[in-house]
Amino acid sequence: MLAEHTRFFAYPYQIDQAEMAIFGVPFDCTTSNKPGTRFAPARMRLESINLETYSPDQNLDLADLKVADLGDLICPFGNARKVLDLVYQQTEYILEQNKMPIMIGGEHLLTLGAVEVMNEKYSDLQLVQLDAHTDLRDEYLGEKLSHATVIKHCYNLLGADRIHAYGIRSGMREEFEFAEQNLNFNPFDLKGMSKLKDKLQNKPVYVTLDLDVLDPAFFPGTGTPEPGGVTFKELLSELFTLQDLNIVGFDLVELCPEVDPSGISTAAACKVLREMLLIAGKSKNII
Amino acid sequence: MLAEHTRFFAYPYQIDQAEMAIFGVPFDCTTSNKPGTRFAPARMRLESINLETYSPDQNLDLADLKVADLGDLICPFGNARKVLDLVYQQTEYILEQNKMPIMIGGEHLLTLGAVEVMNEKYSDLQLVQLDAHTDLRDEYLGEKLSHATVIKHCYNLLGADRIHAYGIRSGMREEFEFAEQNLNFNPFDLKGMSKLKDKLQNKPVYVTLDLDVLDPAFFPGTGTPEPGGVTFKELLSELFTLQDLNIVGFDLVELCPEVDPSGISTAAACKVLREMLLIAGKSKNII
Amino acid sequence: MLAEHTRFFAYPYQIDQAEMAIFGVPFDCTTSNKPGTRFAPARMRLESINLETYSPDQNLDLADLKVADLGDLICPFGNARKVLDLVYQQTEYILEQNKMPIMIGGEHLLTLGAVEVMNEKYSDLQLVQLDAHTDLRDEYLGEKLSHATVIKHCYNLLGADRIHAYGIRSGMREEFEFAEQNLNFNPFDLKGMSKLKDKLQNKPVYVTLDLDVLDPAFFPGTGTPEPGGVTFKELLSELFTLQDLNIVGFDLVELCPEVDPSGISTAAACKVLREMLLIAGKSKNII
Amino acid sequence: MLAEHTRFFAYPYQIDQAEMAIFGVPFDCTTSNKPGTRFAPARMRLESINLETYSPDQNLDLADLKVADLGDLICPFGNARKVLDLVYQQTEYILEQNKMPIMIGGEHLLTLGAVEVMNEKYSDLQLVQLDAHTDLRDEYLGEKLSHATVIKHCYNLLGADRIHAYGIRSGMREEFEFAEQNLNFNPFDLKGMSKLKDKLQNKPVYVTLDLDVLDPAFFPGTGTPEPGGVTFKELLSELFTLQDLNIVGFDLVELCPEVDPSGISTAAACKVLREMLLIAGKSKNII
Amino acid sequence: MLAEHTRFFAYPYQIDQAEMAIFGVPFDCTTSNKPGTRFAPARMRLESINLETYSPDQNLDLADLKVADLGDLICPFGNARKVLDLVYQQTEYILEQNKMPIMIGGEHLLTLGAVEVMNEKYSDLQLVQLDAHTDLRDEYLGEKLSHATVIKHCYNLLGADRIHAYGIRSGMREEFEFAEQNLNFNPFDLKGMSKLKDKLQNKPVYVTLDLDVLDPAFFPGTGTPEPGGVTFKELLSELFTLQDLNIVGFDLVELCPEVDPSGISTAAACKVLREMLLIAGKSKNII
Amino acid sequence: MLAEHTRFFAYPYQIDQAEMAIFGVPFDCTTSNKPGTRFAPARMRLESINLETYSPDQNLDLADLKVADLGDLICPFGNARKVLDLVYQQTEYILEQNKMPIMIGGEHLLTLGAVEVMNEKYSDLQLVQLDAHTDLRDEYLGEKLSHATVIKHCYNLLGADRIHAYGIRSGMREEFEFAEQNLNFNPFDLKGMSKLKDKLQNKPVYVTLDLDVLDPAFFPGTGTPEPGGVTFKELLSELFTLQDLNIVGFDLVELCPEVDPSGISTAAACKVLREMLLIAGKSKNII
Repeated sequence: MLAEHTRFFAYPYQIDQAEMAIFGVPFDCTTSNKPGTRFAPARMRLESINLETYSPDQNLDLADLKVADLGDLICPFGNARKVLDLVYQQTEYILEQNKMPIMIGGEHLLTLGAVEVMNEKYSDLQLVQLDAHTDLRDEYLGEKLSHATVIKHCYNLLGADRIHAYGIRSGMREEFEFAEQNLNFNPFDLKGMSKLKDKLQNKPVYVTLDLDVLDPAFFPGTGTPEPGGVTFKELLSELFTLQDLNIVGFDLVELCPEVDPSGISTAAACKVLREMLLIAGKSKNII
Repeated sequence: MLAEHTRFFAYPYQIDQAEMAIFGVPFDCTTSNKPGTRFAPARMRLESINLETYSPDQNLDLADLKVADLGDLICPFGNARKVLDLVYQQTEYILEQNKMPIMIGGEHLLTLGAVEVMNEKYSDLQLVQLDAHTDLRDEYLGEKLSHATVIKHCYNLLGADRIHAYGIRSGMREEFEFAEQNLNFNPFDLKGMSKLKDKLQNKPVYVTLDLDVLDPAFFPGTGTPEPGGVTFKELLSELFTLQDLNIVGFDLVELCPEVDPSGISTAAACKVLREMLLIAGKSKNII
Repeated sequence: MLAEHTRFFAYPYQIDQAEMAIFGVPFDCTTSNKPGTRFAPARMRLESINLETYSPDQNLDLADLKVADLGDLICPFGNARKVLDLVYQQTEYILEQNKMPIMIGGEHLLTLGAVEVMNEKYSDLQLVQLDAHTDLRDEYLGEKLSHATVIKHCYNLLGADRIHAYGIRSGMREEFEFAEQNLNFNPFDLKGMSKLKDKLQNKPVYVTLDLDVLDPAFFPGTGTPEPGGVTFKELLSELFTLQDLNIVGFDLVELCPEVDPSGISTAAACKVLREMLLIAGKSKNII
Repeated sequence: MLAEHTRFFAYPYQIDQAEMAIFGVPFDCTTSNKPGTRFAPARMRLESINLETYSPDQNLDLADLKVADLGDLICPFGNARKVLDLVYQQTEYILEQNKMPIMIGGEHLLTLGAVEVMNEKYSDLQLVQLDAHTDLRDEYLGEKLSHATVIKHCYNLLGADRIHAYGIRSGMREEFEFAEQNLNFNPFDLKGMSKLKDKLQNKPVYVTLDLDVLDPAFFPGTGTPEPGGVTFKELLSELFTLQDLNIVGFDLVELCPEVDPSGISTAAACKVLREMLLIAGKSKNII
Repeated sequence: MLAEHTRFFAYPYQIDQAEMAIFGVPFDCTTSNKPGTRFAPARMRLESINLETYSPDQNLDLADLKVADLGDLICPFGNARKVLDLVYQQTEYILEQNKMPIMIGGEHLLTLGAVEVMNEKYSDLQLVQLDAHTDLRDEYLGEKLSHATVIKHCYNLLGADRIHAYGIRSGMREEFEFAEQNLNFNPFDLKGMSKLKDKLQNKPVYVTLDLDVLDPAFFPGTGTPEPGGVTFKELLSELFTLQDLNIVGFDLVELCPEVDPSGISTAAACKVLREMLLIAGKSKNII
Repeated sequence: MLAEHTRFFAYPYQIDQAEMAIFGVPFDCTTSNKPGTRFAPARMRLESINLETYSPDQNLDLADLKVADLGDLICPFGNARKVLDLVYQQTEYILEQNKMPIMIGGEHLLTLGAVEVMNEKYSDLQLVQLDAHTDLRDEYLGEKLSHATVIKHCYNLLGADRIHAYGIRSGMREEFEFAEQNLNFNPFDLKGMSKLKDKLQNKPVYVTLDLDVLDPAFFPGTGTPEPGGVTFKELLSELFTLQDLNIVGFDLVELCPEVDPSGISTAAACKVLREMLLIAGKSKNII
């Protein structure tokens, strides 16, 4: 008789019953432009209940996948390193249970906490980045831990040629030059993603999906809108090519519901989450 | 000296002077997600005054068409069947005057009232549905009369192969399977619409245009935004192919101005209405 | 490590561990003006976590009270009577557990379901209504079950002199005349509430608090704003006089978060809920 | 069967059947801060339908008064003088029909057009101004015709001691000095209004009610919010004292619905209009 | 240590140190639909600080260009001709300093002031118009100086065949006919722009970019949204072909931040400004 | 000819020409509820231009006071201590110039940086706090530097009986107990402020004005709205009693323009700033 709207997609599972585990991180303190991504996990949970579990595009259904929702981390506001440690611990805990970790941001810096632990577990971890921004600065406004530096930190961990970046259309000239030299760098669109299968084969892949890779027309709800992005259909179409990779985890970051008065960005984020769950399930042959 | 903004496009005609008759139905009580489509008819009237009457795309002008605005039905909130009866009566009245009925919703369930009477008048009525959602459930949250069941009700009236559905990208797996088997079902886009001419020839066609067939980027103002839809240009382009059919009535539903802070959805709805009026006029050779 | 924002005030109790039980009813289908009170329970839960548990005004703390959150009812949209039956059953269930029922609307019609069962349990039930509107119509737009008729239905159940109305400032002339003759009617403000203690002594009291009794300056988030209401301080001050009554249940209705862009109405509703819980606890001598 | 929401309070009367005549003026081109009062007449019409016709405060009902809604003037944007001429002509027309003219702005400058013609008809016209701002500049940004100069223009027409100003709390030092010397000037609140009866006796009174006299808490929907104003209850209470004057016309100006997301300002404006119509009716002994 | 967010892109230059000079014109008084473009210059300045100076598309950097921000004109509200004179004087002043003038509107009428002076300086001035609307009326609501007449005024100055219009999709039938006969008229999209190089060779070109040429999905923040426009990518791609023309000045008009709650339109306008500055710099071989 | 809207109240002075110096601090990273106070300084600058410089309440004019606007600090997001150091340095710099420092937040934590340096300069510094919240926690979510701990830090610096708190209506039970014992604590309203003159005599006073001391009706634009506060008139009235104290500096904090859609909170903040500047000027006998 009671509604269950407190878990993603109303999934009833505990972690030991599930194949994947989602957690939210309501943190946005290094955001330099419009803050508010901290509200994304709670808003997405509510909206996810309204979404059909069936994907007509993939002809797959979330009902055939077991996902646990672990709730949100409690974040000490103003202390980025402590929050990264919490992300690290939560991801580590999920991996120890042999489940696939899925993180819902919050800001993009959070990806660092997840990549740190994934990199320890998987010796040849590959990072696939979909994004509007390079995020390759060494520091931003004097701070090393910032959404604008997160991929540089990942690079420092992973080394050359293990980051595969798509859709990027904004950054400093120096960042673009660095990216061209040190990343598998595919700016402006997602067209090269279908080549990843041949390139990566069965290597473990962590996908970090900064939703601002979408054009602001399709995803206005983000703190630093960057016109000139991909359409929703283009995003989905290229994401489907990830089915053939060996996905070991992923995150969705940078939804800012505060600047999404129509709710179309939250709707898009939920649909991307549904499709990514199914893609990851297909990648693992569990659906 | 006085402004006349109380009728669609400031049309001055009474029903006996007109070729078509518009009425609004401010009703949205079975809406399960964000309500507010009840405000669409009044908001569209106000905005329609700002729109040019000339369509550059069709090189036709509303000034050459006579349309009466019959105002809005007074709806008893909370009683869906009674509202459908009002829609039935109003549509019947317009048909009795030998005018083409045009309904502005309100939610999609309202289409049922119009189809009920159209089906009685036209023995071989064809229903062309543009939509994001299947709307083919048998019941929704225990209710048979719901926006989520409207096309199933139409199917029960019309029988197999008389519903032609386009653009649908969301529904339950069972609905998609039913649609594949029992409708002329063309999901995801509108590309098949140009084939309708050969298929339907001169059969009477009622068009129900759920505006959420548009991608939320182009039409954020709807209660259940469904990313991955068609662009405005794609919609117009395919609608123009309806000129060659025998249109006997149409409706526009599911504009929710409450979640359209920029007003672009209301603007889109008004432009679609202008184009559809001209298309219907062309279909009838009265323009 | 995980955040708990899925229950009111993060209360961890099951119903058998608690003294009171809250449930939400996301239903607003007979709302004739701006809909959206359906979103109140979920929004209030999220916001309630941000509120201190301590009331400086009463020098009491929610930490000293045990309340269970039973979640929200699943409502069939468009069927008012069925929803009232669900409210009836849920309230009955709570009473059977010997807990105090507390309902969060949704629209004001819902109060009827609770009063029906309370009236069966308590032979001399008294209804205290705080409201901007009389809600005493016999029918509204042809419907008997409507937010505009709810108190008339309660009157039909309870009979004369058992409804004590405060703060009302809007209605038809006939409704005001009826209220003067048949209710303990105290329009415009809340000043007479302090006399209830002498009047009602230990009789069982159900409080229905339509939050639009507040002036729209203090509570803009409601579908039918009615200027000229009481201030927040006036409301609190008079509510405290209810400590001396025998409260057996209460509801808060008509918060519409959709028209509360600053969130001040949700904040006010949560604070009123905190104070009412403490008042009811004091009334029962359990705090 | 059809809704009639295209006239204020759904009044059905033509001017010859009525005792008063309302017209709207959607013009705001000299507004220097946030524009948008042009949308007030249309928005108020829609909202006025939702308001009860009965005033509990005055125990009077609009149903006992006959008011014609003449619609809105068509305004040439960017030409203030031409618009004032239109206001002049419309007001003159209403007076020729022996009806009381009532204008809904639009910006405050519009009052000048009405006062010009009222002053010609009534040799001893008195102007009662409720306002937050002095509006006594000689020019504003180089323009003589501006919302910031309107009362100075009226002063130039009427001469000393025929303007009675209340509630003003903002202006230049020079304006306040001028007002103290040349007007019946009662800044900060409305307390002195009850003395008008003795002072003006039966002289003809035109009331210009700039709604920003209300505190922004009670009336956020205005282009230049000025904190420190009166409450809604204070406004109503003092307006009722106007019943004893000889009111010959009035206007309500400066509602800006664009900055009123909750709709509480439009609701307040409609309620003030209802009360003012009843006050004017009482003043004329026709109710 | 202090932030400098009071000039476009934080450019520190005085006019004598710069190659180009920007000024804003916060004026929108002839706007007939939703006003508010007056707020565009201030809003764009603030947002421009958040934008990277580097253009990955052009591989050029604003850091290599010297632009002076002259601030905003002080506009007498309600007097269109006086404002055009101010625009004329400011543009003339910039030309006298041998700098390229760049104007940020405000409404489209302002272009007339700039074209008047440009036409005096350059005997064979060519006007490139990107727009959704023809703007070719002789008068609008009785006024000759209006956003809806601006290109007709330019035509009267420049004569036939010196106006090159792109992207237009709305207007009266008469305007379309006039445009076909008297302009280089390329409605609906921007595809013909690449031919301008051959056509215009080294003739001096003034570009007026009405941002509503973009589809409202990509640019919702405008007073008269016109669905069916170009995408942001299409706009950028065609703008780049202007590098080969002899640009002598340009303006961006019709951003209305008031109806851009997500900020994506301001972001788009700032990015277009960055790209246009670089295009103009390239055109002049100074970058 | 050019507008000057880049400094508070368009003040043209450099610091050496002025008697007071304002600076903004766009920082809100420890905000646990709705962020966005970072946008307050820039928004207030823009709005301050629209405010009259004359205060009718005090009969004083900003034109008679010389204030320098030093712009905003550039804040490293995510590093609270570093920002406090910047506040410290800027305040110290102003004091070294013998000017009165005035800070515009940003969040309340920033006050600590100013109090640190004021406390070093003035041996008997008194802190007057107007606030809705106690802000007396030892840590918040594990962090010592937080908006919720700022007054506790100040207490640790100043010791007992040098903090005078007014208007507080929210906090933990322990905080209220601590406040009763260690502060001059006057919760719920501002009535005790007039006694400060006798109590403090000529001791140096720093005023920290958390604008959420106002009721959310009058000041909705704040991240943690706390119903039950003072009215704007009550605030002004009590602030005027500060004229008789020895004010050595003050700050205004916690305006969050992102949740102030009508702009009434920014207007209130600007008016409070005007009045506080005049109060401080009066306190120093320089006006």
